[in-house]
Amino acid sequence: MAPGHEIAHLAHLQLFTPKLDESVEFFTDFLGLRVVDSDGPDVYLRTWDDYEHHTITLSARKRAGIGRTHLRAASPEALRRRVAALEAAGCGVGWVDGEPGYGPTYVCTDPDGHEFGIYYESDWFTAGDDTRPALKNQAEAYPGVGVGVRRLDHVNFLGRSVEENRDFLVDMLGGQVTEQIVLDDGTVPGSWTTFTNKSYDVVYTRDALGLSGRLHHIAFATDTRADILRACDIALEQGVFIETGPHKHAIQQTFFLYVYEPGGNRIELCNAGARLILAPDWQRVDWTAAERAKGQAWGMKTIESFHTHGTPTVDELALED
Amino acid sequence: MAPGHEIAHLAHLQLFTPKLDESVEFFTDFLGLRVVDSDGPDVYLRTWDDYEHHTITLSARKRAGIGRTHLRAASPEALRRRVAALEAAGCGVGWVDGEPGYGPTYVCTDPDGHEFGIYYESDWFTAGDDTRPALKNQAEAYPGVGVGVRRLDHVNFLGRSVEENRDFLVDMLGGQVTEQIVLDDGTVPGSWTTFTNKSYDVVYTRDALGLSGRLHHIAFATDTRADILRACDIALEQGVFIETGPHKHAIQQTFFLYVYEPGGNRIELCNAGARLILAPDWQRVDWTAAERAKGQAWGMKTIESFHTHGTPTVDELALED
Amino acid sequence: MAPGHEIAHLAHLQLFTPKLDESVEFFTDFLGLRVVDSDGPDVYLRTWDDYEHHTITLSARKRAGIGRTHLRAASPEALRRRVAALEAAGCGVGWVDGEPGYGPTYVCTDPDGHEFGIYYESDWFTAGDDTRPALKNQAEAYPGVGVGVRRLDHVNFLGRSVEENRDFLVDMLGGQVTEQIVLDDGTVPGSWTTFTNKSYDVVYTRDALGLSGRLHHIAFATDTRADILRACDIALEQGVFIETGPHKHAIQQTFFLYVYEPGGNRIELCNAGARLILAPDWQRVDWTAAERAKGQAWGMKTIESFHTHGTPTVDELALED
Amino acid sequence: MAPGHEIAHLAHLQLFTPKLDESVEFFTDFLGLRVVDSDGPDVYLRTWDDYEHHTITLSARKRAGIGRTHLRAASPEALRRRVAALEAAGCGVGWVDGEPGYGPTYVCTDPDGHEFGIYYESDWFTAGDDTRPALKNQAEAYPGVGVGVRRLDHVNFLGRSVEENRDFLVDMLGGQVTEQIVLDDGTVPGSWTTFTNKSYDVVYTRDALGLSGRLHHIAFATDTRADILRACDIALEQGVFIETGPHKHAIQQTFFLYVYEPGGNRIELCNAGARLILAPDWQRVDWTAAERAKGQAWGMKTIESFHTHGTPTVDELALED
Repeated sequence: MAPGHEIAHLAHLQLFTPKLDESVEFFTDFLGLRVVDSDGPDVYLRTWDDYEHHTITLSARKRAGIGRTHLRAASPEALRRRVAALEAAGCGVGWVDGEPGYGPTYVCTDPDGHEFGIYYESDWFTAGDDTRPALKNQAEAYPGVGVGVRRLDHVNFLGRSVEENRDFLVDMLGGQVTEQIVLDDGTVPGSWTTFTNKSYDVVYTRDALGLSGRLHHIAFATDTRADILRACDIALEQGVFIETGPHKHAIQQTFFLYVYEPGGNRIELCNAGARLILAPDWQRVDWTAAERAKGQAWGMKTIESFHTHGTPTVDELALED
Repeated sequence: MAPGHEIAHLAHLQLFTPKLDESVEFFTDFLGLRVVDSDGPDVYLRTWDDYEHHTITLSARKRAGIGRTHLRAASPEALRRRVAALEAAGCGVGWVDGEPGYGPTYVCTDPDGHEFGIYYESDWFTAGDDTRPALKNQAEAYPGVGVGVRRLDHVNFLGRSVEENRDFLVDMLGGQVTEQIVLDDGTVPGSWTTFTNKSYDVVYTRDALGLSGRLHHIAFATDTRADILRACDIALEQGVFIETGPHKHAIQQTFFLYVYEPGGNRIELCNAGARLILAPDWQRVDWTAAERAKGQAWGMKTIESFHTHGTPTVDELALED
Repeated sequence: MAPGHEIAHLAHLQLFTPKLDESVEFFTDFLGLRVVDSDGPDVYLRTWDDYEHHTITLSARKRAGIGRTHLRAASPEALRRRVAALEAAGCGVGWVDGEPGYGPTYVCTDPDGHEFGIYYESDWFTAGDDTRPALKNQAEAYPGVGVGVRRLDHVNFLGRSVEENRDFLVDMLGGQVTEQIVLDDGTVPGSWTTFTNKSYDVVYTRDALGLSGRLHHIAFATDTRADILRACDIALEQGVFIETGPHKHAIQQTFFLYVYEPGGNRIELCNAGARLILAPDWQRVDWTAAERAKGQAWGMKTIESFHTHGTPTVDELALED
Repeated sequence: MAPGHEIAHLAHLQLFTPKLDESVEFFTDFLGLRVVDSDGPDVYLRTWDDYEHHTITLSARKRAGIGRTHLRAASPEALRRRVAALEAAGCGVGWVDGEPGYGPTYVCTDPDGHEFGIYYESDWFTAGDDTRPALKNQAEAYPGVGVGVRRLDHVNFLGRSVEENRDFLVDMLGGQVTEQIVLDDGTVPGSWTTFTNKSYDVVYTRDALGLSGRLHHIAFATDTRADILRACDIALEQGVFIETGPHKHAIQQTFFLYVYEPGGNRIELCNAGARLILAPDWQRVDWTAAERAKGQAWGMKTIESFHTHGTPTVDELALED
């Protein structure tokens, strides 16, 4: 059975950073998130439009990279069904306590080893006096600081086999593939999958270094493309490294900016206008190598580091040995 | 059983106009839709991001108003289940052929008499040479003409009993109420309902004149609020009547502009940034009369005609007698 | 001789506030100015694109209102010529030391009693380490805080005789009238005057209360109209009072938002796109009462307080007695 | 004597195109100009905010390139003074009839051979019924078609000696240099000059091919940077070639997009926010080679063709022989 609508949405995720203080400063002063809590090496931050407890956990580690990515199940029943399926398929790790603000969480891994946590119970966030929003249909006051990103938009993993990881999302979690790159040899070096009416929530891209479990980037949504231009101006002033952009992807039509947070992880600011996938029989879009060779939507060529930089980096991995 | 996810999305709808040619000109030159076909008194138009055959049917009639509003079912099975439920509840009218490009359509009415059509089969639109999009993940070329609205966003009906109509959407069609106005006497003069991750697709507002079956407005989505400011400039030059706005609603946080098309129907241009309802346990927001008295989000008072103008208008109804 | 090009531009101005701390907070946290210096009851603040020492002096006083408005002369010779003309006309008050960062300043008053200071010598601002801009053609780092207004745009005085005040600007200072309101009786209740390619720098509006020397508002320029919509969102969250807007004036086509700073002075955020007055033979635009009756550009009616509120307020003036 | 304020502004200019019909279509359907008149091989087009008769003359020629660039003098006296100076310096060619809508025009050439026309008399444009603006302070209705650029912003010539050409603008015409590139050997490969409060009106860049009299690009101003992003989308759909951008120059902070019109001339769409040069003692900004090596403002590297493509192209020049 196609397990559609079992996952409600991409939720909070954990990022590793070897420079915790500077990473926190990047997330607050540049992106405009707020620190909601901290616990030893873990700092919890939230975007203003997140109804749950937190959006990002920054965890001090020797190397950069992504920790656990959380998905909220659509219901307690959906959670039970997903756990049963994962256990049957041998992808499950087991139950753990959720992060602060979240209920029991079932941990599993994709074929590449990226760790996911699935949960249903979630405490709705209540803002304190200093960040109480003026409008009651909003989680927290819109911040007048930094870019002021609205929410976590998607995560883009690097992996050895995009196909296997993609199938995990589809078969185990009910994801729907909306767009793909399909090479002339039939292999798939990139796949975009959604759980919602957004055109994608999770992306897998083939790791050019043949490594497993790495992160290409996580992305935050802004309300407009002009917000991303303003982000460029702020990045320039704050010394945030801009890797590439602003420009528009042909795939998914996302207007993008890629920067590195001080810990080394690539962060995207993204906007796709009001584009949504509403068709229940969406016809997957496959992009050929020839179509990809045209560059981004408006013609910019993709820069080299975009194909190779991931976290942990090769340098970081070498250090571990 | 709560019939969630049975309706995929608000689809095409029919608008009546006593001034067909002028209405067509408004939809093409001002809004930026394209005429895709016509058949006697019916002209079919589409927004550039609609994957289906058409978005709006403009039908020549003696008076303004809304005809049939179409909802696409999530699957053939969902369609069968909805029909069974509607027939059991006595809300069904029966099967008809769909409009050009659409399969068999089941017609039903809400308690107020507004007509709905539910269908599943739909021919995906294929653009001809002159409007073929540059990017293959898009239905049709973005037009460089007029406002260039992306898609139909929502419809706002006037009704005698908001509660009964709202319950019809919820119980029969699986709609979810995201926000409401609840007066001190407990009655509900306004209710916002969604079938998707958008924060609303269908709205019911109490008809101040106590009439049934009227339309308050239909709304088209733009990608940014600035697009709506540009729409103001174009409206001014083209002589399009601006009723109120631009401003931001407190309810749903929609940035809005209300204009009248030449036939008399109110048309909204709307943008809510990147706001989406992702929580599977969304906590409905109820607005009190006191909260409403504060005016719109940024303080503007609602003008009188917004409470009274609907289509057909009182003058048009008098003419019918 | 027409003294064109004698005044280079509207420069810094002094605002009185009975709530200095709250006013400073408004100018920094909401508007995004930075405090550059202070001296007892005077706090000096600057917009990031101002090449001079400061843009605004906030001065603690018992009542709100405007103090001295400074104009920078185009050259030392232009300054001498203006002083000679002012003295000959009996409008001069005399030389004073300039505010910190500015050279000798000649003080004069318009027929209504508003005080002007004219100077030429000016120390170019040099940013410290913490606000040094990334680009060397910019005065100070773009702030990632609040609205981030670019510069002081114009000042709008209330006056008993618009005609006399306007003639003072034209005859004494070389201003050029670009637009006016001319009533059926030939009187002029509003006049817009420029010293630059901007379409206006100084405005006189007839004081509905028949008072002298009051301020209607001062205005700050943003780069886009969308910046002003964002300002609305921030105002809402910070509790800044929005009097009217956002909307677009027919006169000068300025997109506007009017708020009150905590001291009571009306502050405008304004944007006119890329509109400039380049014609050396600009044909003054006169608006009739009938044309004004159409409301603002997109049809909004002007609210009552916009005609009556000025600073000092009537209450403040009564207190003085 | 420094001849400041003798030239009011950059006015209309003539562009050569080997593909007249396609060039006209580009200027109307893509840029949103309107054809106001034509005369054999010459088609006159205007931007909506131009108060004069036309903005661009497209002239059918065997090769692309720029014809005469017109500057409007600030007064009849200023025109006489400039002519006297030009004749004394041996740069003058002589008087000719102005283009339709313009009075007697004095033709001269810069040291590189680019032709300039200086005039004062100008018929103010009066819109016909079909393009009459809704607001009387505007030349013509804002078009709801294409990009809808507001006005001609600047022209960028290629030249053998930037220094000599720059000095011509400064000494003969009263231009002011606001920014320059100064190499380590002291030579100036790029110079930005203004006649107004805009930060530049005319640019000279060293011709990498060592040729004389060529054009790098002409530029049109939009009201916002987002307008330029929308232009990208329209360019993509209309098959307009995008050479580079959108991005932001460090020099002058211009947000830019460079496209080629069908005749081969490079056209820039540009926006610098609300930035103006108001200081009468502007401190010229000199950029070193090291500073330039950082790339554009947000880090993008300049592409090769931007350094080499000019019109006429080398191929076109070879054809002439």
